[in-house]
Amino acid sequence: MDSSFNPSVSVDCVIFGFDGTALKILLIEVERNTEREDTAPPDYKLPGSLIRQDEDLRSAAYRVLEEMTGIRDIFLKQLHVFSEPRRVEGEYLRWLREYYRVETDRVITVAYYSLLKLSKGIELHTRRKRAVWADVQHVRHLGLDHKKILVEALSTLSRELTHSPVAFELLPRKFTIRQLQSLYEGILGIEIDNRNFRKKIFASGYLTPTAEYETNVAHKPARYYTFNKTAYEKELRRKFRQGFIRWHE
Amino acid sequence: MDSSFNPSVSVDCVIFGFDGTALKILLIEVERNTEREDTAPPDYKLPGSLIRQDEDLRSAAYRVLEEMTGIRDIFLKQLHVFSEPRRVEGEYLRWLREYYRVETDRVITVAYYSLLKLSKGIELHTRRKRAVWADVQHVRHLGLDHKKILVEALSTLSRELTHSPVAFELLPRKFTIRQLQSLYEGILGIEIDNRNFRKKIFASGYLTPTAEYETNVAHKPARYYTFNKTAYEKELRRKFRQGFIRWHE
Repeated sequence: MDSSFNPSVSVDCVIFGFDGTALKILLIEVERNTEREDTAPPDYKLPGSLIRQDEDLRSAAYRVLEEMTGIRDIFLKQLHVFSEPRRVEGEYLRWLREYYRVETDRVITVAYYSLLKLSKGIELHTRRKRAVWADVQHVRHLGLDHKKILVEALSTLSRELTHSPVAFELLPRKFTIRQLQSLYEGILGIEIDNRNFRKKIFASGYLTPTAEYETNVAHKPARYYTFNKTAYEKELRRKFRQGFIRWHE
Repeated sequence: MDSSFNPSVSVDCVIFGFDGTALKILLIEVERNTEREDTAPPDYKLPGSLIRQDEDLRSAAYRVLEEMTGIRDIFLKQLHVFSEPRRVEGEYLRWLREYYRVETDRVITVAYYSLLKLSKGIELHTRRKRAVWADVQHVRHLGLDHKKILVEALSTLSRELTHSPVAFELLPRKFTIRQLQSLYEGILGIEIDNRNFRKKIFASGYLTPTAEYETNVAHKPARYYTFNKTAYEKELRRKFRQGFIRWHE
């Protein structure tokens, strides 16, 4: 057998955060060996790391997540492996070799995506790490093939959104319908008709109104709702016991 | 940065085939350096390969698929990466080092799953490759962590089955309801109530009856149906245009 070899293996994390208004993604500056012109705008990429000898991929992804956000135990899912032979080359490959002190000609990356509710604590932590929360809809270009990874993450999240109530992972426990709609719009990248959205979402029967309303807002204060996860999961189990074909519904 | 290293990277393929009666999976004998007692039963594993320097993972998976089945252009999907640090060790690691002539202490594998309609041509090809089509429900043990990979593939396929008409990838163009039901039972690992199944599946509205019936059967000949994929996909696009929240349905 010929032409076998060992590539480097990394994880890259698409960390989505929602601040109640827009869907954000955590980005870091591309590190370089060479000095650039001060006037050149920085390039951004997803946070990631080569994996270590004694860790599996999930542990590596959690390590990156914790380093970048300061928290563990958040929603984390394997997305896809990106393995185009020349996806990492040139200056970035040289930087990587030096930084990790590893002989390497090729890097295969396993992308993970993570969902979290943005808080002041997280934002403080990421600022200290010199990372930025960029509005997903405004990300034009990323280093390496990371724009492709982001597009794949968004498309997976869109699919998930139709099949499961994953959106609530990104929302605070109490949220307004406007926040929920902004989140759907942020993920799907489209504007959604207000009235249809409210109708659909109330018809689900899993939103519980609270007695609380927004304060300090210029418009009419909106009511806060919670998501009844227990009822949803109970109903899901019941449906799966009853039958399993839902694709034609 | 310390403790960086390069693992070997492989693909392993869960190749599902349906012969009209039972859901099968393609297995090969575990290769060994050492001679074993002739009386010892062979161990089986999934077909796979280390990736080559110039190929991406998908190409490697297609290469394995084509070698094992003789065909290309079949349903192939990335499943999951298995990266437990000690998942390959001992005798199998020694065999791998020798066979591929590669320095390696660790193998990360990317699992793919594939769906195909079994035919005489494919069965002839796999027999020549000394591979076996095992009944999925009777697979007790596999080499390495391949049983875990199979379980993951089955669970993914079960989820897919509820959300999409993926089952028809495994069926011939014309099939009986009994065949369709056997397939669902094979994937889900449960017995399904006959009458409920027929009701649900006809309610979908995407099965078109043909004028053909089974021949040479002991029981009452069953009618053949086809799946109206065009109508299904048209309706799906319409639904997605209308709204995108289906998780509460």
